[in-house]
Amino acid sequence: ICKSLNDFQEFAVRAWEMGRSDPKKVIFAIKMGLALSIVSLLIFWKGSNEEISQYSIWAILTVIVMFEYSIGATLIKGFNRVLGTVCAGILAFFCAELSILAGDQREEVLIVASIFIAGFFSSYLRLYPTMAPYEYGFRVFILTYCILMVAGNRTREYNTAVLTRLVLIAVGAGVCFVVNVFIYPIWAGDALHGLVAKNFMDLAISLEGCVNGYLKCVEYERVPSKILTFQAYDDPLYNGYRSVLESTKREDSLFGFAIWEPPHGRFRMFNYPWKNYVKMSGALRHSAFMVMALHGCILSEIQAPAERRQVFRSELQRVGAEGANVLRELGSKVDKMEKLSPGDILKEVHEAAGQLQKKIDERSYLLVNSERWEISRDPQVFQELENLKENENIKLGFKSASEAVLDIRSLTLSTPSLPPKDSQDNLLAKQASWPSLDAGTGIEQSECRTYESASALSLAMFASLLIEFSARLQNVVESFEELSEKANFVEPIMNSATV
Amino acid sequence: ICKSLNDFQEFAVRAWEMGRSDPKKVIFAIKMGLALSIVSLLIFWKGSNEEISQYSIWAILTVIVMFEYSIGATLIKGFNRVLGTVCAGILAFFCAELSILAGDQREEVLIVASIFIAGFFSSYLRLYPTMAPYEYGFRVFILTYCILMVAGNRTREYNTAVLTRLVLIAVGAGVCFVVNVFIYPIWAGDALHGLVAKNFMDLAISLEGCVNGYLKCVEYERVPSKILTFQAYDDPLYNGYRSVLESTKREDSLFGFAIWEPPHGRFRMFNYPWKNYVKMSGALRHSAFMVMALHGCILSEIQAPAERRQVFRSELQRVGAEGANVLRELGSKVDKMEKLSPGDILKEVHEAAGQLQKKIDERSYLLVNSERWEISRDPQVFQELENLKENENIKLGFKSASEAVLDIRSLTLSTPSLPPKDSQDNLLAKQASWPSLDAGTGIEQSECRTYESASALSLAMFASLLIEFSARLQNVVESFEELSEKANFVEPIMNSATV
Repeated sequence: ICKSLNDFQEFAVRAWEMGRSDPKKVIFAIKMGLALSIVSLLIFWKGSNEEISQYSIWAILTVIVMFEYSIGATLIKGFNRVLGTVCAGILAFFCAELSILAGDQREEVLIVASIFIAGFFSSYLRLYPTMAPYEYGFRVFILTYCILMVAGNRTREYNTAVLTRLVLIAVGAGVCFVVNVFIYPIWAGDALHGLVAKNFMDLAISLEGCVNGYLKCVEYERVPSKILTFQAYDDPLYNGYRSVLESTKREDSLFGFAIWEPPHGRFRMFNYPWKNYVKMSGALRHSAFMVMALHGCILSEIQAPAERRQVFRSELQRVGAEGANVLRELGSKVDKMEKLSPGDILKEVHEAAGQLQKKIDERSYLLVNSERWEISRDPQVFQELENLKENENIKLGFKSASEAVLDIRSLTLSTPSLPPKDSQDNLLAKQASWPSLDAGTGIEQSECRTYESASALSLAMFASLLIEFSARLQNVVESFEELSEKANFVEPIMNSATV
Repeated sequence: ICKSLNDFQEFAVRAWEMGRSDPKKVIFAIKMGLALSIVSLLIFWKGSNEEISQYSIWAILTVIVMFEYSIGATLIKGFNRVLGTVCAGILAFFCAELSILAGDQREEVLIVASIFIAGFFSSYLRLYPTMAPYEYGFRVFILTYCILMVAGNRTREYNTAVLTRLVLIAVGAGVCFVVNVFIYPIWAGDALHGLVAKNFMDLAISLEGCVNGYLKCVEYERVPSKILTFQAYDDPLYNGYRSVLESTKREDSLFGFAIWEPPHGRFRMFNYPWKNYVKMSGALRHSAFMVMALHGCILSEIQAPAERRQVFRSELQRVGAEGANVLRELGSKVDKMEKLSPGDILKEVHEAAGQLQKKIDERSYLLVNSERWEISRDPQVFQELENLKENENIKLGFKSASEAVLDIRSLTLSTPSLPPKDSQDNLLAKQASWPSLDAGTGIEQSECRTYESASALSLAMFASLLIEFSARLQNVVESFEELSEKANFVEPIMNSATV
């Protein structure tokens, strides 16, 4: 008992925390209570009429199902509610007339059959993909239809019943609407706006974290199996891009609500381009995949040696920092709803990427294992090279010298570069699956070399991914520009200050 | 009018197609109609009692909200329904006694206040994350509570009302349960099982498609902006991995339903390890990210020259084919619920990856731009190399020769390797963002080279990603083994045939 009491206490504390960190939730709950109280007061007030009291469930039911967190959602539900009820009412009216004409015995058979047919169609059609937003409407339709047919059959007062219900539903919907819109409104559009801006910040943190972590040679002592199986995990790096990747569904639903909302707050415009928010977020996600791949380099068991990473340190860091800057800049522009400042926001990051590329070129011997360049030993290679390049004019005379040099250099270069892999042997989930690690001793030598060169290539991969990321940023910037045009973002203030 | 008629016709045809391709949906709709008919028949049959007829809405409402697509979902809703109703009934009973004691005038005030408090708490707590599965229970609770307090206040028959309602809800729930379980049941577990197996197949198709597309140098004439913004698009390659990535939410909800289902069909076991299905799918997703990155190589504007890709053709293809084989094998094992055959399923793919790696080593000169190796020109490089490797023993005498060779070879090698980029200039969404492409002519020469080497590195990246993919497969295999142990998959039949 003591334990469950503790559990309860803990739960209460957490619930309290939730309210403190997001006061909107508390406000929502208060509004819900308020709406219910108002409806029940109205019913008490008008309640001298027996009819209304009997059907009071309709008003209360309407409030409970219609009262959603955001205004857009409430409007969609309200629309569905009204549409479903009206359709059901009309259909029920005709069917009722028909069943009365049919006579006493066949009446009930007809009603049951019509319920079956209506139930079949409404539940079949609501599975149709494009019908998803009206799913609730179908439910309301079939509910209302059944109730009217079944209850009306007893009392024979189809018309009164329909009217009373409609009035009560209207009352419930009206109370919902008024309370939800006029008392501290919570807009889905605001939420979408905030979510997109937050995604930019999250991704920036992840990007910087990945680059810095890579340079610091962060190795996961044990890669948390939660990451390997893509489950939630409390690594800020990981959560940064994961939240960007996972927000698709939420964005889509917020978008669905936002288009129903009237112009409000900072979004004073009809046909506000919410679609472009989703599109920009998609472009951001396309970049986030690269960050994920960067993180994959840190997680992977094939690791580049630390010394080689240091060679590219400043360049890698610059690209990472500039990329994160661009993301932050865009994020705050979205947040403040400003247009881009004149000048190319991507200039810095492209320059940085260019430098990184140049450095890679100059030091590309660090990225490959040149030991096996069997140029002079294997005539087939010549053949290949000649086939590849028709204007081939390699002087054969140089070949043997070249080979000698390369052999010596790479042998000495690559031997100490084998990273200490012992620490990874006891990985959680035994991730060390690189086959050569537990191969026999006979061919170990050659496989060790294979491993080495793989490890050096992983550095090349990291750099390439970073460059590709900076290229994909272009996309994000373009979709931002499109959004800022369509949504009439303000000109940045800095601009006027410099004029 | 003619157009809307056409639209309607088209809609009807598509709806019919949906039914043909997935007969379960038709069956579901028929079952829904059946359940509603049965309930209304029951009400007609027992309907001589005025009381029951008045409250018939409860039975119908229960059927409509409880009748979900899968059995697990129905059970959860039913549980919520019962829990919410019982809690509300008990609370309403005490509050009603209290309000009657309070006297005539204060009674209604007390009721309204209690409704406000109940509404506040129930809507606040249902926003609490871990409460998500009970969200519906909270709704039922507040609905029942309000109805009982408001309606009961008029009739003073709290107890009768509560009991009648409970009985009607039980009838509705019972009909739902019987119809849903005993007539062609649709299990969420089955769906989860199928979804996971399908994910394996989808990913295999995507993987093969990526590797083959890369070797065929498929270039998107215009990258569809739907891909760049991560929206649905009808490219089979893209959709393969996208569906794997996107299925997280669906798996989670199916998992939530599946754990509620009793042992059934092929899953005859208590505590069936559905959790492991989700885990395995997560591991698969972790591999899918690599396939996505591979596709990113095809999409990217930095493309490796076609001739160089051909050098690695057979190796790349083998890794891709073997990887896809492993995925297909695992997928069909999951589908047939068999354990793995003895022997290492990953042997082939690891061998293939090893060979690819070896080939990369041997031909790594194709992957880098050696032109800029400024070994003898820049003494700083020596410094670096010496710092890096303490047992450095490069003979300085060879340096100039080496440089000369490298210069000649790489100059001739890399000049024709510039891919035709003109076709990409008119990309949709102006994706060609690589800054050097539209730079001035003065520094174009050096930037062209930068571009070249980036394009060669992109081939290295593709290969590395493929190797990393094959390494991540280990993870998938392990989670499959865990699942097959816990779920008591059968031994493969092949095994007994060979004995």
